[in-house]
Parts: sequence; structure tokens; C-alpha cells
Amino acid sequence: MFWVYAALAVSLVSFFVAAYFYNWVKKLPTANPKLDEVGALIREGAFTFLRREYRVLGLFSIIVMAVIFLFFPQPVWAGAGVGKNLLMVFAYLCGTVLSALAGYVGISIATIANLKAATAARESIQKSFMAGFRGGAVMGMAVIGTSLAGAALIYIISRDADVIMAFSFGASSLALFAKAGGGIFTKTADIAADLTGKVELGIPEDDPRNPAVIADNVGDNVGDVAGMGADLFDSNVAAMAATIVIALSLGEVPFLFCVTTLGLLASVVGVLCARLGKNGNPSRALNGGTYLTCGVFAALTFIACLASGFELRLWGAAMVGMLAGVIIGITSDFFTGDDKKPVAKVAEACQSGPAFTILSGFSYGLLSALPALVGIGLAALISYKLCAPLGAGYEMLGISCAAIGMLSIVGMIISSDAYGPIVDNARGVAEMADLGDEVLEITDELDAAGNTAKAITKGFSIGAAGLTVIALLGAFREVVQAAGVEITFDLMDPLVFFGMLVGAAIPAVFSAMLIMGVNRNSQLMVKEIHRQFKEIPGLKEGTGKPDYARCIDISTLGAIRELVPAGLTAIAATLLVGFIGGVQAIGGYLTGNIISGLLLALLMSNAGGLWDNAKKYIESGHFGGKGSDAHKAAVIGDTVGDPFKDTAGPSINTQITVVSLVSSLAAVLFLTYSIF
Amino acid sequence: MFWVYAALAVSLVSFFVAAYFYNWVKKLPTANPKLDEVGALIREGAFTFLRREYRVLGLFSIIVMAVIFLFFPQPVWAGAGVGKNLLMVFAYLCGTVLSALAGYVGISIATIANLKAATAARESIQKSFMAGFRGGAVMGMAVIGTSLAGAALIYIISRDADVIMAFSFGASSLALFAKAGGGIFTKTADIAADLTGKVELGIPEDDPRNPAVIADNVGDNVGDVAGMGADLFDSNVAAMAATIVIALSLGEVPFLFCVTTLGLLASVVGVLCARLGKNGNPSRALNGGTYLTCGVFAALTFIACLASGFELRLWGAAMVGMLAGVIIGITSDFFTGDDKKPVAKVAEACQSGPAFTILSGFSYGLLSALPALVGIGLAALISYKLCAPLGAGYEMLGISCAAIGMLSIVGMIISSDAYGPIVDNARGVAEMADLGDEVLEITDELDAAGNTAKAITKGFSIGAAGLTVIALLGAFREVVQAAGVEITFDLMDPLVFFGMLVGAAIPAVFSAMLIMGVNRNSQLMVKEIHRQFKEIPGLKEGTGKPDYARCIDISTLGAIRELVPAGLTAIAATLLVGFIGGVQAIGGYLTGNIISGLLLALLMSNAGGLWDNAKKYIESGHFGGKGSDAHKAAVIGDTVGDPFKDTAGPSINTQITVVSLVSSLAAVLFLTYSIF
Repeated sequence: MFWVYAALAVSLVSFFVAAYFYNWVKKLPTANPKLDEVGALIREGAFTFLRREYRVLGLFSIIVMAVIFLFFPQPVWAGAGVGKNLLMVFAYLCGTVLSALAGYVGISIATIANLKAATAARESIQKSFMAGFRGGAVMGMAVIGTSLAGAALIYIISRDADVIMAFSFGASSLALFAKAGGGIFTKTADIAADLTGKVELGIPEDDPRNPAVIADNVGDNVGDVAGMGADLFDSNVAAMAATIVIALSLGEVPFLFCVTTLGLLASVVGVLCARLGKNGNPSRALNGGTYLTCGVFAALTFIACLASGFELRLWGAAMVGMLAGVIIGITSDFFTGDDKKPVAKVAEACQSGPAFTILSGFSYGLLSALPALVGIGLAALISYKLCAPLGAGYEMLGISCAAIGMLSIVGMIISSDAYGPIVDNARGVAEMADLGDEVLEITDELDAAGNTAKAITKGFSIGAAGLTVIALLGAFREVVQAAGVEITFDLMDPLVFFGMLVGAAIPAVFSAMLIMGVNRNSQLMVKEIHRQFKEIPGLKEGTGKPDYARCIDISTLGAIRELVPAGLTAIAATLLVGFIGGVQAIGGYLTGNIISGLLLALLMSNAGGLWDNAKKYIESGHFGGKGSDAHKAAVIGDTVGDPFKDTAGPSINTQITVVSLVSSLAAVLFLTYSIF
Repeated sequence: MFWVYAALAVSLVSFFVAAYFYNWVKKLPTANPKLDEVGALIREGAFTFLRREYRVLGLFSIIVMAVIFLFFPQPVWAGAGVGKNLLMVFAYLCGTVLSALAGYVGISIATIANLKAATAARESIQKSFMAGFRGGAVMGMAVIGTSLAGAALIYIISRDADVIMAFSFGASSLALFAKAGGGIFTKTADIAADLTGKVELGIPEDDPRNPAVIADNVGDNVGDVAGMGADLFDSNVAAMAATIVIALSLGEVPFLFCVTTLGLLASVVGVLCARLGKNGNPSRALNGGTYLTCGVFAALTFIACLASGFELRLWGAAMVGMLAGVIIGITSDFFTGDDKKPVAKVAEACQSGPAFTILSGFSYGLLSALPALVGIGLAALISYKLCAPLGAGYEMLGISCAAIGMLSIVGMIISSDAYGPIVDNARGVAEMADLGDEVLEITDELDAAGNTAKAITKGFSIGAAGLTVIALLGAFREVVQAAGVEITFDLMDPLVFFGMLVGAAIPAVFSAMLIMGVNRNSQLMVKEIHRQFKEIPGLKEGTGKPDYARCIDISTLGAIRELVPAGLTAIAATLLVGFIGGVQAIGGYLTGNIISGLLLALLMSNAGGLWDNAKKYIESGHFGGKGSDAHKAAVIGDTVGDPFKDTAGPSINTQITVVSLVSSLAAVLFLTYSIF
């Protein structure tokens, strides 16, 4: 149990670091009262959304808890009794509360750090970078500390696969809605603000005359900060849950806690050391922190393995996962980086009009799936083969260790990732509070670094989700076999095949629903902005005051209205397939879901990032620069890419995880009650 | 052997019908010398392309034949001896020659029927319909007669699974290049003509002043007629090959020939009966022919089963396939039909600009995958379960019978499908030869019916490809087991999983290469058109003569340059995965390929068709009609959709088939020489 308690201890350390950074950031000055005012608007909007969203999700969770109590893992009247079902309910509740907490902490700090980073930019880029990064690190430390501590506590209490799955399901189901809801919110506001502001009126981004501008800045927080935090919280918990389920019967749970604990410790070292030198490049500072974390992690775990007598093959599997993550990150950087060929090519195609912008970006998006899929496939294959000699059951443990290895440095990853929307927001509030062009330049530079970091971390999180869901598939089989049924999923079994085809369709349907939601809402908001410009006197000239709250309202209500159907569709389809085709069909269903989910997630995330950066590439003066026809085409590409990369693409990860967890939880029910 | 000889006899009948229709169409008058002149340009351009393409493919085939002789099914020095390898070469050659012939016949008749249909439109819509439809039927009868006769002959000569696979591989490899090459040709010209003519100069479609106009019309023939003919020839042969391989050891080959023979007979009845009544609706006439064929087919095969003592369960499986085809066709009609909700919704979204056009069309495209995938999955599941009681091996035969059932009426399908580009071309030549507005109205109406028919037949062909490749997966396992290796493809085997992830990436890469090819070429052609308008005096005013041949050249060379790398990538990836991961990895690879291939094919075909029809919907007077901002957005959507629906989408079918056949052919090699 040494490593389990070590996990709790290191979690505590990470909480201290988070609290230290929180205070450090909070103590920084804010420039002027106007900045405070803008900040308060954003903060209020974000918390309003969060409160409303959590109210809906609370209701949802209560229903799920009732269902879990009645039916999971077995009907309360038929199974092992009330105690087990109650424990499941408790674990599920812990998962949801901790996941919600992660989002809450993230928004708390992000809506402070944006103002501090903007103010600090008046002094130096170094100071501003530190404000943004340490703000992000509060989120990183809090999220990973919470997930590790939660998993350790649930393990100490129950040591039961079902209960751990329920904990993970709690985290994932909330993450699914947080990610989808936040994604719809942010893109609704972003698209509407761009279309009316930049395109129609020709006023700059973040211009305070635009009624959607506050909603847009709120969106960065609820979508990119809270949503992303919930997403990686969920991946991390799911990977741990899958590993615990597989490792339980092999007695290898301590290794899991060793790896995750040292990963968090390495991340603590990484975030404490990250600094921007004089004349330093913020991109390099972020990536340097990531590489340092990787190195510390590799060294610490190697020593720990020798000291604690863990199998070095398991350590090897974790390293394979970590390396695969880095490689996938680098390839997504290739496809979306603004100094690489694809961005330049897409920008060049913009000269021939929007159709070619879309076609070329879409093509590169399709191509970008290859290296990532091959990387995930190779990581799974190598880690499996590496651990197979250790005995039966160790092969799948190898794959889940690769997932854990990839996610081990996730504390550092979240810190870099949350840095992005914070400095993006800093730019916005600086513009609104008139902090001057120099500040805008600095925050622009910091923002560009955030975009590059985002590409890498997004590759990481998709790769990690890929390996995690393979491990979850293994966990699903484990659960079925624990129920006394020997099972293989044969591709030639028509139930498997049927499940696979249906499973492949689900991420497509899920993405379509989210994109359509963004479409509908942003059209509503465009109408509202037109109304305000027509009815509020002096708004265009800057003398009238826009009604920011109405726009925030539209985003909020729209997101809440759209997020539930998409999420429920995925869960309902899983139950339908399971009760029709049984566990065989579910095996196929999960596989089809993983394959098409990864493909679509990579396509949409990378094509979206590519279009965004192609637009920026043109704005930096290529092919005619701002205002040229090429720029107009690029703006259209960017608008198409917005819901691709920030709503649908990154939500698919969570959709796959949720569906996998539902399957494992309902496995025994499927065995008992399916039609075929 | 009764049914094998019956197949030959009915093939002969279909040849007679084809010859009769050919002469019937040829004897129709042409309106004026100008029409003849335009017709000759198109005909010449089409045959020039075909000759050049076939020269490249001839070279390719010679290399493949050498490889087959040396290595397939086993190295010539190691296997059963020279005789078998030679027979394989012969079968491969037959496949390629017959497939090439199908394309040749199609172009021959299509480039006559277009002129006749245009001329007949001066008399009545009925006559014009008949000229277009019977022209298409020449293709339908010739293609299916050839494929059936070819399969029967190869079966009589060899009765060997490997040889039949080689025959099918010959047909498929040629089809892959014909489809990809034709698709690139047609969309290069179409996009360039639209962008320069409609968008920049504001001259109508098919205006003779546009230098790309002849290339555009040539493209309809080489892409939609020859390419589509080769595609369905290939699906049909592949389905028969898979069924023969599975049926051989069960002694059920006669049933296969019974079904395919009666299917062709039913198609003969269907095409002979199809007629457009007075005040009749051309759409209904086409669909009526299809439903009649289905009914005749069901009745004839039922009686034959009773008479010849075939298992009624096999008959049932064929019916399940046929029904699934109809249902998939109807759902793709829902997503792309111009009187249905999605088209109206996308047209409405065009009012908010091109980004919303793309996003809404893309979302519906994603949604459209669900019913088709569920339909294919259900058809496979039901036909499998239906035939399982007949004994081991019959389950997979059930699935292949469903594929055969779906393809049985393909003679009728091709006839309706080839009708589309013929009347589309008729519209073009009528415009160029000044046949008057009344003729244009009639050909427009006939063309609209062609679009609807195309949606349905495209659904059919994707569905059929889906079932066929599942059957081919079964055939692959059969081949491996015939080599004495007992095999199951377990989803949890990491080699299977690795193969699956790589296989899923291939259709994405393949599509990206084709779309990029179209992009590159059409930008070249746009430049050439700009040059001509600048350098040829009086071109804009109609007094100068455009250089049509240069544009045809650009399309031709571009298509030939792009088609080989895309096709070879798919084949090379298959061999790579096979020699690395062996047959297990290939099992996964094929599955991943099928899943992502079907998903992408459905997405791209349906989104493309939807954008096309949304544009037409606006042109018919909705949301501001022609020239409005909504129309401009719709044109952008249509341009994005062009390579989606006519280049990449429909080529994916063939890519999947080719990869499946390569796998079966190389199965023994993979067993012997793979790394893992």
C-alpha cells in the first residue's frame, strides 16, 4: 500500500503548489478600474453559466444515481444486495463532484489570471508569461491532484472493479456534458462575434462595442478552461480505472500508483521550473517544461521500479506510451504549426477562394489521421508484446500502462493548455480596457505560443484517449469474464460486426448534433446583435452601451439545450445495442466507436487548427494580408473550423470514454437480458 | 452445371438487348451539323483520354502480371508449379480486359446518346427520355452480361478460389484507376469551368465561349459513365468471387449463378419495360423500372429455388440484401433529394454565408451515415443468422448471398445511373448547338430525374460494397484456412487492433490524395482559361475560338499523374501491414478499412449531393434565387462537394474492394513471410 499512500501525499503537495500559485497570481496588481469592471463581467458570466449548467447536470446526476442504485451492477433485488449498489452510487457521486470541482477551480483562477497577465504585460513579457502559466498551473495541479487522490481513496475504500468504474463514469459523464456544453457556448459566441464584428462591421476582435464580446471571452473560460479540464480529468481517471480493473487480479495496482504519483511529482517539478528567460521564446519555455517533466518522470520511475522491485517491462510500456504521446504531439504540430508547410499551403489555396480553402484544409485533416493512428496502433502493439512474457493478463496491462505513461505528465500538459485561453483572454481584456498597443503585441505573442502548445497537447489527449479506450475494452472483457463468461470478440461474428458498424456511426451523429447546435445558436445570436445595433442608439459610434448579458444568455441557454440530447444519444445507443446484441455486439460497438471516433477527432481537431493558423498566417502579411480576398476565404475556413476543433473534435474523446464505461457498468445486465 | 450454362445463355440475351438498343439509339437523327461538330469534339476528347489512360494501365497491368506470375498465389519456384501461376495471370488479364471493355462500350454509346437525346427533346420529352435511358441500358446490359459471362467462364475453366480472386482483382484494380482517374478528370474540368465561367464572367453553364466546356462534357463521360461502369462491374465481380470462394466447399455455387442469372434476366425485363408515359414523371419512370425489376427478380428466384431444390434460407438472405439496398437508397434520397428537409435546411443556411453552408451540409452528411451503416449491419446480421442453421460455413454464405441479392438488379441500376450523365450531356450539347430554350427545359427536367436516381443508385452501390467486403473478409479467412491454418480474428489481439487502426487511416489518406489532385489540376486549368481569355482576341465576345484541346489535355495529364500514387498507396499499405503483422493484422486492417471507408464514402457522397441540390434549390427561386448572396454561398458548397461526391466518395468503394482482394491473393505469402 506504500504507493497508494504516496499518491495521497503527493496529491497534497500538488494542492499546496496550486494554492501557492493561486495566491501568487491573486496578489499581482490589476491595471485600472476599467479592467476590473470588464473582468467582473467575464467572471460573472462564466459563473452564471457554470451554475446553470451544474443545476441541469445535478438533476441528470440524481436520475443516474437512482438508476445506478436500482440496476447497477445488478438489479438491487437480484444482485449482491443493497450495500454494493449504494457504494456504486457513492463512487459515482464522488466522480461527478470532483469533476465539477475541477471545472470550478479552473474558472476561478482563469478569470483572475487573465486580468493579471494583461496588467503584467505592461511591465514585461516575462511577467505576463508567468501570470498566465502559473494561472494554468493552478488548474493543472488541482485537476491531477484531485483525480489521483480520488482514485486512491476509492481504491482504499472498495478495491472493487465495479465501484472504480462507477467513479470513473461519474467523472466522464459530467465531463461529456461540460465539454460539449462549454464547446457549444464558446463557439456560438466566437462565430457570432466574428461574423458581425470582423466581417460585417470591420471592427477589430474584442472591440467593446460588439455585444457578443463578453460572451466570447466567457466562452474561452467555460469551453477551453473548464471543458478541457473536465476532459483531461476524465481521461486520467478513466485510464486509472481501466488499469486498476486489469491490475487487480494480477496484484499490480501498486505499480499504477507508483507511475501516476511520480508523474504528478514530475509535473510539479516541471511547473515550478518553467520560466521565460530574457529574450526567451514562450513556445520554447512551454515545450521545455514538458520535456523536462518527461525526463524527470522517466528517471524517477526507473529508479522507483528498481527500488520497489516492479517489472521493468511494465516500466517500458509506460515509456512507450509517453514517447508515442510526444510523437503524436509533434505530428499534430506539423499539421497545424504556423511555420510548417500545410499551413502555408492552405493559406496559398485561400487565394483561389473559400472552396479551395475548405478542400485543402479538409485534405490535410484527413492525412493527419495517419501518423496518429499508426502511432497509437504501434504503442498498443509494442506495449502488449513487451508485457506478454510476464504471463496471461499482462498484455492488456501493458496497453493500459502505456495509456498511464502517456497521461502521467498530464499535470504539466493541463498547465500549458490552460495557459492558452488565459493569455487569449488577457489580450481581450487588454483591448477592452485600453491598455495600449504594446500590451496587445505582447499578449499576441504569448497567445501564438498558446496555440502551438494547444496543438501538441491536443495530440496528446487524443492519443491518450485512444490507448485508454483500448484499455477500457480490455477492462470490459475483464468484467464480463469476472461474471464467469469466457469471451473472445471474433471479427467474423455477425453480432460483433453489426455492433461495429453501429458504433462507427455514433461519433458521426454526436458530432453532427453538436455542430448543428453551434449553427443554430450562433444564428440566433447574430440576430440579437443585429437587433442591438439597430435599436441601441450610438452603439456603433461607441457612445451607446451594448447589452452583453443578452448574448451571454443566448449562449448559455443554447448550450444547455443542445448538450443533453447529444450526450444522451450516445448513451442510449450503447444501451440499445447491448440489450439487442449482448456483450458480443458491445465489443464490436466499442471498437467501431473508437476507430471512427479517433478518425473524426483527429480530422476535425487538426483541420480546425490548420484553418485557424492559415488565417493568422495571412493576417501576418502573406498573400495580401488582412482585408484581401485570401483573408476573406481564410475567415470562412476558420469559421468552419471553429466548431470542428473546439466543439465536436475534442468532445469525441469523452464520448468514447463514456460509452466504454457505460458498457463495462452494464456488462452484467447485457449478459442477462439481451435479445440475441 | 445447369445454372452456369444458363448464366452464359442469359448473358448472350443481354448482349442482344444491348446491341438492339445501341442500333436503336444510333438510328435516331441528330439536329444539325453544329451538334455533330460538338459531339465529335466530346467523343474525340473522351477517347483520347481513354486511350492514354489505358496505355498507362496497360503498363501497370503488365507489371502486375509479372508479379503475379512470379509470386502468386505462391512463389513460382516454391508452389504448385508454373501452371497455376499462369492461370492466375490469364484470369487477371481477363478481368482487366473485360473491365476496360465495359468502360469503352459505355463511352461509345454515351457520346452518341447525348446528341440523340438532345435532338429528340425537340420532339417530346418521352422520346428524349427513351434515347437517354436506352443509351444507359446499353451500358447496363453490356457491363453485367460481361461480368456474368466472365465469371461463369473462369469458373468453368478453373473451379479454383485463387484464380477467381485473380479475375476479380483484375477487374478491381482497373476499376480503381478508372474511377479515380475519371473522377479527377471530370471534377478538374467542372470546377475550373464553373469558377471561371459562372462565378467570374457570369456566363451560363455550358457556354461555348468557355475553353473548359468541352473538357467538362468529356468529364461527364469518362468520370460518370466509364468510371461508374467500371465501379459497378468491379463490385459485381467481387461479390460473385467472394461467394464462389465461400460456396465452393459447400457445393452451393449453382445457387449463386441462379441468383445472378435471374437478376440479369429481371433487369432485361426492367429495361425493356421502362417507358415514360404521357405527362409522366421521369423520376417515377426510372424508379418504377427499378421496383419492377426487384419484383420480377424476387418472383423468378423464388420459383427457381423451389424448382431446383435450393435452400429457401439462401433465397431469404438474397431478399434481405435486396431490401436493404432499397432502404439504403431511400435514405440517401432523403438526405439529398431536393424535395426533402435537409436540402431546404442547407439552402436556408446558405443565407448566413458559406461557412454555415459547409457546416450544415457536413453535419447532415455525418448524420446520413447512421441509417446506411445500421442497414448494412442489420442485413449482415439477419442473413447470417438466417443461414446459420444450414450448417458450418453457411453463415458467411448468407452474408455473401445478401451482397449478391443487393447487386442482382445492378443491370437496371447501371442503366438508370448512366442515363444521368447522358441527359446532363444532352443539356450541354443542346446549349452549345443552340437548340433553343424548350429543349433546355426538357433536358433540365430529365437531368433532375437523373440526379435523384443517382442518389438512390449511389446508396445501392455503397451498401453493396459494404456487404461485399464483409463477404470478402469471409473469403480471406476461407483462403487462410484452406492453407491449413485455423484462424479467428480476436479484437483483443494487438496485431488485429494495430491493423485496424492503420486500415482506418487508409481511406482517409486515399481520399485526401484524390481531393488534392483535383485541387492542383483545377487551379492549373483556371490559369490556362485566364490565359486564353487574355491572349485570344474576341473570345469573351464570342468571335474568337477557344482552344478546347489544351483544357482537355490538362485534365487528362493531371488525372493520369494523380491516379497512380493514390491507388498504389492503398495497395502498398496492405502489403506492408501484411508482411509486418501477418494475417491477423490483415484481418484487422480490412475491418478498419471497411468501417472508415464506408463512413467517409457515405459522408462525402451524401454531403456532396446535398450541396449540389441545395444550390439547385436556390436556383429554382428560393432564398433570393440566382445571383443572391445565398446562391454564392451555395456555389461554394457545391464546389467543395464536387470532389467529395464524384471523385473521392465513390472511389473509396473500389479502394476497399481492391485492398480486400490483394489481401486474399497474398494470404499465403503473409502466412509464410510476415515479421510477427
